Order: sequence, then structure tokens, then C-alpha cells
Amino acid sequence: MSRHFDQAEGLSEQHDPETHQYVFNQTMMRIKDPKRSLQFYSDVMGMTLVKRLDFPEMKFSLYFMAALSPEQREQWSKDHDERIKQTFSRPAMLELTHNWGDEDNEALSFHSGNSEPKGFGHIGFAVPDIDTACERFEKLGVAFQKRPADGNMKGIAFIKDPDGYWIEIFTPERLPELLSEHL
Amino acid sequence: MSRHFDQAEGLSEQHDPETHQYVFNQTMMRIKDPKRSLQFYSDVMGMTLVKRLDFPEMKFSLYFMAALSPEQREQWSKDHDERIKQTFSRPAMLELTHNWGDEDNEALSFHSGNSEPKGFGHIGFAVPDIDTACERFEKLGVAFQKRPADGNMKGIAFIKDPDGYWIEIFTPERLPELLSEHL
Repeated sequence: MSRHFDQAEGLSEQHDPETHQYVFNQTMMRIKDPKRSLQFYSDVMGMTLVKRLDFPEMKFSLYFMAALSPEQREQWSKDHDERIKQTFSRPAMLELTHNWGDEDNEALSFHSGNSEPKGFGHIGFAVPDIDTACERFEKLGVAFQKRPADGNMKGIAFIKDPDGYWIEIFTPERLPELLSEHL
Repeated sequence: MSRHFDQAEGLSEQHDPETHQYVFNQTMMRIKDPKRSLQFYSDVMGMTLVKRLDFPEMKFSLYFMAALSPEQREQWSKDHDERIKQTFSRPAMLELTHNWGDEDNEALSFHSGNSEPKGFGHIGFAVPDIDTACERFEKLGVAFQKRPADGNMKGIAFIKDPDGYWIEIFTPERLPELLSEHL
């Protein structure tokens, strides 16, 4: 492999310097009930609510979740304005949007994007050991879309969050071998 | 503000040590035509194709894009296996899924999640200066869902990628003041 990066048609190798500081900061998903989603993302996935923003006029709230290590948690500012800047500057924020009252609307459910009409597919988490992680998910009663032993791609799992969004679970060190059977 | 992190019902403050190393690695969206999407994400958004995975048996390809600084690009391994581990270990990967032949299916389009049935909303990028960024997007012919001067939230923009997925654009340093009018 002589090239530094992979190739594909359409790809631009030279990036406009204006884009050099662009940060892929966030992924936003609507949630029906913040209580159950915050329980899931904090307790099951270990994420921290780094900023909550309530918009009373427009009757919605945003919950910004980050997978922070204990060391990163220590570095988080206690100042409201500073925390807003941190929240919108760092990569890999999960933004959960709650329109007030949706939790009481029995007819409402959100679309995972994996049945028609398709679009968005999933978010994904790297975990130190997929077997340990999946055993823990089972104990916690998490819903599985695909267990590691299911389907073509052994060793990769998909769990579902409380709204039914898919979350891929994998252990990076195991992937080169696992993928080599299919590539 | 005496608490270190924001509060909300359902939230767990103590994280299981098992989750301390979890990384929010990826967000996956289906794309119709890799050529136009790779052009957009590399040229307009400045992202790097850090790994391309082709699955000939299953007739699909995955394109993993990252917003890497020139320094981070230098640190990327040239080794296939090592690059797979890097791709799945780091935060904020954009995974674009292409099912072969979709580009020739005239009837096919993907769902942004922002009309019924709603779900996923958008991805978002922090940029050094939103005005400069938006002037550049205009010059490049990028479609806007919302210009910075439109609507309630001045100073925030939404552009659309070639499949119609929304991308929020903002400058973190400007947000505390901008949001203070609404919070």
C-alpha cells in the first residue's frame, strides 16, 4: 500500500486551508422521553451530560452527551459560558433533542432510519471487550438488534436505545481479523 | 452554579468503570452516490477518507471520513490493519454506506429524518468563523436549509449534503451570547 490514504472517485486530496480547523462536533437525534434516554446513555453507555440547554419559549430541551474519561471529566469547566464553548468545540457529542410533551404522546415514536424510508443508520461505540460489554448489556436488559454470534459479521453487535435507534458495538483490535473474511 | 455537570431526571452520576473507555466512534448514514458524497465531504467539509472498506460478497462499501488536521493526517498509519484499528478507535468518524447500484436507481432517495417519520436530525460542524464558512459554501454552490440570518437562531446555519442530510454550522465562541437570548 503506497498511498497514505485510501482512494475513491470524487475525493479531493488537497483540502482548502479554511477547512483545516473544522470539527465534526455533533450528531443529533430526537428522543421521546429524556428520563429514559438519559438513564440509558449515562448508566448503560457511561456518557456524561456535559450541557443541558432549555428553550422555554420554543418548548424544547437539548441534552449534550459525551463519552468522557474520568480525566476528561475533571477538565470540564464549571462556568456556564465556558461549558457551552467546550460542548460545541469538541468532537463526538451526542445531541438529544426533546420537544416538551412528547413523552406524554402515546402515539409518538421516532424512526430509526433502518426501515423505509431509510437514511441515517446508527451510531457506534468502541468498547475494550465486546463480550464483556454484551454480557453487561444483557444483565441490564438492553434490547439487541444483533448479538455478536448472529449473522454474517460475527463479533459485532447492535443494541437499541430506548427510542429504537441502533448502536453498533465493536472492539477495534478484533476488527482487522474479523473483517478480513469479507473484504 | 455549584455542580460540576448539569442535572436531569434519570441521569446517573456514577459510571460503571467498565464504560470508562467506551468511545463514541461513529455516525452512519446511507448515501446514494459515493462520488458526489466524497466530493462534498472532502472538498467542501475538508474531511479525509481514512478507510474505505469494500464488501464484494454483500455488494456494499463503507467510507470512513474524519475531520483531521494536517498534523493528524501525518499520524495516520499506512498499514491496512493498523488503519482499521485507528478508524474504529477514534471519536467522530462519519461512516458513509453505499449499497452498490443505488447510484443508478433513479427512484431512490434517502430520508433526512426531518420530515415524517422523524428521528435523526443532523450532524454538526464547528467552524472558526461562520460568516467566512457560509460565504465559501455559497461560492461552492452548497444548498442551505437555513442561512445564519434566517429564523430564530441567528448566527447558526444548516446546509444540506448531496443526499439532503442536514449539517449544522456554528462557531463555538459566538454561541454563549447567541443562546443567551433564548435560554
